[in-house]
Amino acid sequence: MSINRRKIAIIVAGGSGVRMGSSIPKQFLPLAGKPVLAHTIQAFANAYEDMEIILVLPLAHFDYARDILEGFNKPPRVQVIAGGDTRFHSVKNGLDQVKGDAVIFVHDGVRPLVTAALIHRCYEAALQYGSAIPVVPMKDSIRVVHENGNAAADRDRYKIVQTPQTFSASILIPAFEQPYDPLFTDEASVVETAGHAIHLVTGDPENIKITQPQDLVIAAALLGGH
Amino acid sequence: MSINRRKIAIIVAGGSGVRMGSSIPKQFLPLAGKPVLAHTIQAFANAYEDMEIILVLPLAHFDYARDILEGFNKPPRVQVIAGGDTRFHSVKNGLDQVKGDAVIFVHDGVRPLVTAALIHRCYEAALQYGSAIPVVPMKDSIRVVHENGNAAADRDRYKIVQTPQTFSASILIPAFEQPYDPLFTDEASVVETAGHAIHLVTGDPENIKITQPQDLVIAAALLGGH
Repeated sequence: MSINRRKIAIIVAGGSGVRMGSSIPKQFLPLAGKPVLAHTIQAFANAYEDMEIILVLPLAHFDYARDILEGFNKPPRVQVIAGGDTRFHSVKNGLDQVKGDAVIFVHDGVRPLVTAALIHRCYEAALQYGSAIPVVPMKDSIRVVHENGNAAADRDRYKIVQTPQTFSASILIPAFEQPYDPLFTDEASVVETAGHAIHLVTGDPENIKITQPQDLVIAAALLGGH
Repeated sequence: MSINRRKIAIIVAGGSGVRMGSSIPKQFLPLAGKPVLAHTIQAFANAYEDMEIILVLPLAHFDYARDILEGFNKPPRVQVIAGGDTRFHSVKNGLDQVKGDAVIFVHDGVRPLVTAALIHRCYEAALQYGSAIPVVPMKDSIRVVHENGNAAADRDRYKIVQTPQTFSASILIPAFEQPYDPLFTDEASVVETAGHAIHLVTGDPENIKITQPQDLVIAAALLGGH
């Protein structure tokens, strides 16, 4: 029987639209009739009835977010707070809102295709292991670049990391007390540096990150295919 | 001024349809009205007027290939030969057909979105450096899996390898005289083991490999977007 723990999704949507060649930040661009970020919020709201959502955004984007939240028929429980200079600082701002025990999902706002199945998988594994990081296999050959050239690397040894990166609050919050390090590219790296083992779970190849214009085309096609 | 060297594309299409959940091998599934492999062949035929194509296939797929080749309005110069047990052996069978100097492109049959621009870039770099391997940045965080767990890896040090992997015949053909090693996951790893440095060129994020059903949906969307 599964334990019912408090569930908090910290959705981080701090990016600008630079790589998209658009003045509208990518998380607010339309995808199948509504903004990318609206899909992401809906996915978490749908996954568990008692999901609480903390949306971390640059102050400059609060108006966009208000429009999105007003667009929901059944408004999810969302708190909007201001982000920081880096992903680390944005997540830390989100964590400052969390008191007491919980399972915390940290998710990229620009991964709108996240499924309830994946959110459930992360929740169950985080309850059991303290962390749950969804990963997918590396399907292409890879090369490692070094000072004097490059060399083949064994792709079977590597996994591609997705979100939601999911943790017990009792592990995640203390880990974010560490001083910032530029090597903190995701929450797993922060928790790992704090001395915890990272538990991997099976990700979802369709849980793509929207960073370039063609990713929106791909996401629309994947949404249409279901 | 660019040198005009003989150009040979070895297109390898040896995979079965297992991962696609289809009885038809993925390279023969329809994409925007014609088989995946027809797109791939057309891309190479269009890139250079004097391109010669060696298509390496399992014997069991020769009938499919004949249908594709008969479907071209202006038939490209294609020789169809039987593949071997592994990618290495299939490419070696293709190389056995090559006499004299040439620039050789080894390409996945299931990368139908390869552009003339990428093929030109590989040709020019292979002329100059002896090899040209298209790579794209790793945009996701990655983790390296080891015996006792897993650890963060610095994604900026890794590149994702695409095809066409392009070489001077004088480098590629002798490299394939080596005995087979299961670590040969691509042609670059074979040439590197033979003692040559590998030259990387800028790949193309849209030059995707079709291995799973959703990849066909994505490829169709990318084709439609141009």
